[in-house]
Amino acid sequence: MPPRRAHPAPSPRTRVRRLPERGRYDRAAIDDVLDAALVAHLGFVSDGQPFVIPTLHARVGDEVYVHGSSASRALRALAEGIPACLTVTLLDGIVFARSVFEHSLNYRSVVVLGQATPVDDREEKLAALEAFTEKLLPGRWAETRPPTARELKATGVLRLPLDEASAKIRDGGPEDGDTPDAELDVWAGHLPLAVTALEPVPDTGLRPGIAVPPALRPYRRPGLVA
Amino acid sequence: MPPRRAHPAPSPRTRVRRLPERGRYDRAAIDDVLDAALVAHLGFVSDGQPFVIPTLHARVGDEVYVHGSSASRALRALAEGIPACLTVTLLDGIVFARSVFEHSLNYRSVVVLGQATPVDDREEKLAALEAFTEKLLPGRWAETRPPTARELKATGVLRLPLDEASAKIRDGGPEDGDTPDAELDVWAGHLPLAVTALEPVPDTGLRPGIAVPPALRPYRRPGLVA
Repeated sequence: MPPRRAHPAPSPRTRVRRLPERGRYDRAAIDDVLDAALVAHLGFVSDGQPFVIPTLHARVGDEVYVHGSSASRALRALAEGIPACLTVTLLDGIVFARSVFEHSLNYRSVVVLGQATPVDDREEKLAALEAFTEKLLPGRWAETRPPTARELKATGVLRLPLDEASAKIRDGGPEDGDTPDAELDVWAGHLPLAVTALEPVPDTGLRPGIAVPPALRPYRRPGLVA
Repeated sequence: MPPRRAHPAPSPRTRVRRLPERGRYDRAAIDDVLDAALVAHLGFVSDGQPFVIPTLHARVGDEVYVHGSSASRALRALAEGIPACLTVTLLDGIVFARSVFEHSLNYRSVVVLGQATPVDDREEKLAALEAFTEKLLPGRWAETRPPTARELKATGVLRLPLDEASAKIRDGGPEDGDTPDAELDVWAGHLPLAVTALEPVPDTGLRPGIAVPPALRPYRRPGLVA
């Protein structure tokens, strides 16, 4: 049998160098993490200063989209075609080892590198907005008022291809169970964390007689909300 | 009475420009968000490419610390004193409006800009490692094996001052309750999300008779784990 190899990385820039056994480069793993998360962190450089802003994202096929006000600093900077990094992280738990050194977090993360480019095509823009809306609640796009021409103009949408992406995943317990530290009188293990949805809160201005969408009660999102 | 003013921002770079009423610049608000979150996203630039990596962080007084392998690409790049951005985001819920356009997320976020510098002083490094460990579980520093000289050397710690930071907070329901959209036959409101801790999972190699730390059952973290 040949020795087990690390997965091939799509580029040296996305190869997981620290703890390479945690790296995943298959699109199924990358898509799972991207699709589960509601918040991404988008990095870009302006005047030599890196900025990292939280934003809703949505994947459609081989592209990941972000959006915001057309007037925002971030969107204007990115729309010029500068390099961007979109990172998504889901916190899954806390790892308690016998030593300070081996403490860790369990997480699933994805890093996407590339050029963000503005979406000008009306159909593609609407498809991206539909993806954002459906991501928040399946079926929501059909039941809400669609964007007006003015709203569409006020919304900037950017596209980032998934050509250069990697996932990094840590799960399970601590790694000191077979070291001399295992003899210490210290509890070791991990604490899983889960996101749950509470009861939906109706808007104070909600007209009487409008029912809560069935998908909100209970609300589930695979990989994020249990 | 003078008109209500926006909070003064510490720098033009951290001033919240989009939806400025969500901006907060007081240290109490900034510290609350930083201290609640277990994961930060650290942005830096290498060869013109921004990178955003998830990392554990801990605040000690007026500094926020991050750490990692001394050999990591990120830590080596940052330790040269390049500009960095540390962003923390807590997802608090989903906002459902009558229109696609007004959908949103509820969140608390903090952005810190500055130069990350390596911590060389042994006492400061130990204090930062204690802060990381105590952040995961109060009391954990005293009950676990302290770092060896070799482990200390293998761990890089970086310091980022809180001189240039801002918080951005959105909460509550949608903002279309007093617009013509309120007449639409669409449910509107918000769905609070909460992080909860599941049962601690003992390490498979755990020696018999070692009790779970009381602080793990139940596990609570103010502002993060309910």
